Amino acid sequence: MKAWEQNIRRVTPYVAGEQPNKQNMIKLNTNENPYPPSPLVKAALYKIDNLRLYPDSNVTPLVKELSKYHGVEENQVFVGVGSDDVLAMAFMTFFNSDKPILFPDITYSFYDVWAKLFKIPYEQPALNDELKIVKEDYYRENGGIVFPNPNAPTAICEPVEFIEDIIKHNQKSVIIIDEAYVDFGGESCLSLIDTYENLLVVRTFSKSRSLAGMRIGYCIGNADLIKALTDVKQSFNSYTMNQAAITLGVESVRDEAYFREHIDKIINTREWFSDKLRELGFSFGKSKANFIFATHESVSARDIFMAAREQDIYMRYFDKPRIDNYLRITIGTDEEMNVLLDFLKKYLDKK
Amino acid sequence: MKAWEQNIRRVTPYVAGEQPNKQNMIKLNTNENPYPPSPLVKAALYKIDNLRLYPDSNVTPLVKELSKYHGVEENQVFVGVGSDDVLAMAFMTFFNSDKPILFPDITYSFYDVWAKLFKIPYEQPALNDELKIVKEDYYRENGGIVFPNPNAPTAICEPVEFIEDIIKHNQKSVIIIDEAYVDFGGESCLSLIDTYENLLVVRTFSKSRSLAGMRIGYCIGNADLIKALTDVKQSFNSYTMNQAAITLGVESVRDEAYFREHIDKIINTREWFSDKLRELGFSFGKSKANFIFATHESVSARDIFMAAREQDIYMRYFDKPRIDNYLRITIGTDEEMNVLLDFLKKYLDKK
Repeated sequence: MKAWEQNIRRVTPYVAGEQPNKQNMIKLNTNENPYPPSPLVKAALYKIDNLRLYPDSNVTPLVKELSKYHGVEENQVFVGVGSDDVLAMAFMTFFNSDKPILFPDITYSFYDVWAKLFKIPYEQPALNDELKIVKEDYYRENGGIVFPNPNAPTAICEPVEFIEDIIKHNQKSVIIIDEAYVDFGGESCLSLIDTYENLLVVRTFSKSRSLAGMRIGYCIGNADLIKALTDVKQSFNSYTMNQAAITLGVESVRDEAYFREHIDKIINTREWFSDKLRELGFSFGKSKANFIFATHESVSARDIFMAAREQDIYMRYFDKPRIDNYLRITIGTDEEMNVLLDFLKKYLDKK
Repeated sequence: MKAWEQNIRRVTPYVAGEQPNKQNMIKLNTNENPYPPSPLVKAALYKIDNLRLYPDSNVTPLVKELSKYHGVEENQVFVGVGSDDVLAMAFMTFFNSDKPILFPDITYSFYDVWAKLFKIPYEQPALNDELKIVKEDYYRENGGIVFPNPNAPTAICEPVEFIEDIIKHNQKSVIIIDEAYVDFGGESCLSLIDTYENLLVVRTFSKSRSLAGMRIGYCIGNADLIKALTDVKQSFNSYTMNQAAITLGVESVRDEAYFREHIDKIINTREWFSDKLRELGFSFGKSKANFIFATHESVSARDIFMAAREQDIYMRYFDKPRIDNYLRITIGTDEEMNVLLDFLKKYLDKK
């Protein structure tokens, strides 16, 4: 190794789901929304002007819109380049203890990547056999707690009281609840932020708002948390949100009717698809997300994954302990789910 | 302080130039380009589609375009959310030594902010009395070197041989040359990247390409450097560049004629404005940037700054040792510079 290479921070990067780009593919592998964003969003592209000028460093128009939407103060909202950016900044800001941070063994696979990147010690309490979080595992000293609710990739959502119990037992560290998927029928713990000043709730525009392509995420918490997070962000990059993201984000929040209508569509699809999937011999917990995490009674998940991929039907398969016989299937349109069901029927019949 | 507050990373954030938004203001304080980007860029807004899908994590279309433009391999190019994002990621990736990194005492004021954020030791060799970098100050053990060329806020550009001397004396650490302003007549050291594998050259679309509002920056270096930087970026946020930034960035690079024409305009304005400014009693080094860093023989920079601000003419004033009698004046249109000159004439006459 050359001398200049010795001081490089070496990391094993997060690997996102593959992003194929084929005509007529059925892409159910990265939890994107099958419907386009509100027509107001697309129309707003035409309003973008003055690209020569820096965007608003404080993302004011979008912060205002979100604070109004959630009924919180503007100084309780922080916006970033997708919820990944918000989470990365939050890890950097809040997790600086010598004690380990805690997150489940089966969860969003970026958490351990950030912990390693920022050299944060961590421990991963195991989900139980039903793939559910055991709250008592979090009743001990720690440098912080983070998990998604609904959890990913399990799609299982815990009620607000469950989250509150964990926070009550942890007043000495920051608790981050990642609600990337909460809009699809889960219970939000946003109502707790006024009671617990060490709670940060993270959201994204990538799933329920059909804006994965624009990279918009945010979090809500008490003003002191948001101030600390903003200071770190402003010490990293003054202008993270470009003008297009700010403008389109605002329009998305304004079209509540479109938002609700398309979430309902996805929930309806998920419910009938769940029934059909069970009929084919799959089992899975109750999903409150825009995906289902399922295992088949007799055929290996890896085999199904590979065979579907051959037909340009993409699902997500994790080659990891405990979940290597599961498929994570994003809820697409009714038509897409029917194509998948037809494929599964034929494939399983042959087995 | 509450228990959960004790593990917060506390930082003093970078303070960008103020961003007023007034009708008829003359905004010469944040080195933006007075001309809009190429019409191809604006037209490309209408092409953006499939916002529901994640963008390309590897920013492939823009990386391809830039590699073609600069005649380098695709694996030698890294793209980020403005050059600030590129620099922040580069500090995190390459500056992990116990030895101090080196940058000038008078330079881009984000470098010490990043050093503090990432807990990197640093030292700041003083510019000489002409506000020029003394290259011999960098001939000693260090954990890395970074400076802009042309330097900011001095606007002074050193020749390639000067940079090469510094690199020759520093084969054990990574050298980052920040060429944010090089397109305005400076000498680029891009020609050195094949010879020196520890050299990283950083560029931005915010100045010469009139795209501050879209947040696009990049760097070029040998493939090993780019790989390490990409791994860190992928461990921080898989998708930093949204679809709009990628699409518009590509169009900007494609319109070389527009790019050259508008750079020439700014250089022409700078040259005649420089003469007029000297006639008014200002002195400054030869600018190779889209701004001038000037001090007046008898009137204080702070007074001029405040008086101009009253008239909605914004320049940048740094209340810092050694440069607190200087103004940084962005080169705007001919009309804007004439308004500024008229103001200065009247103001200085009254003194």
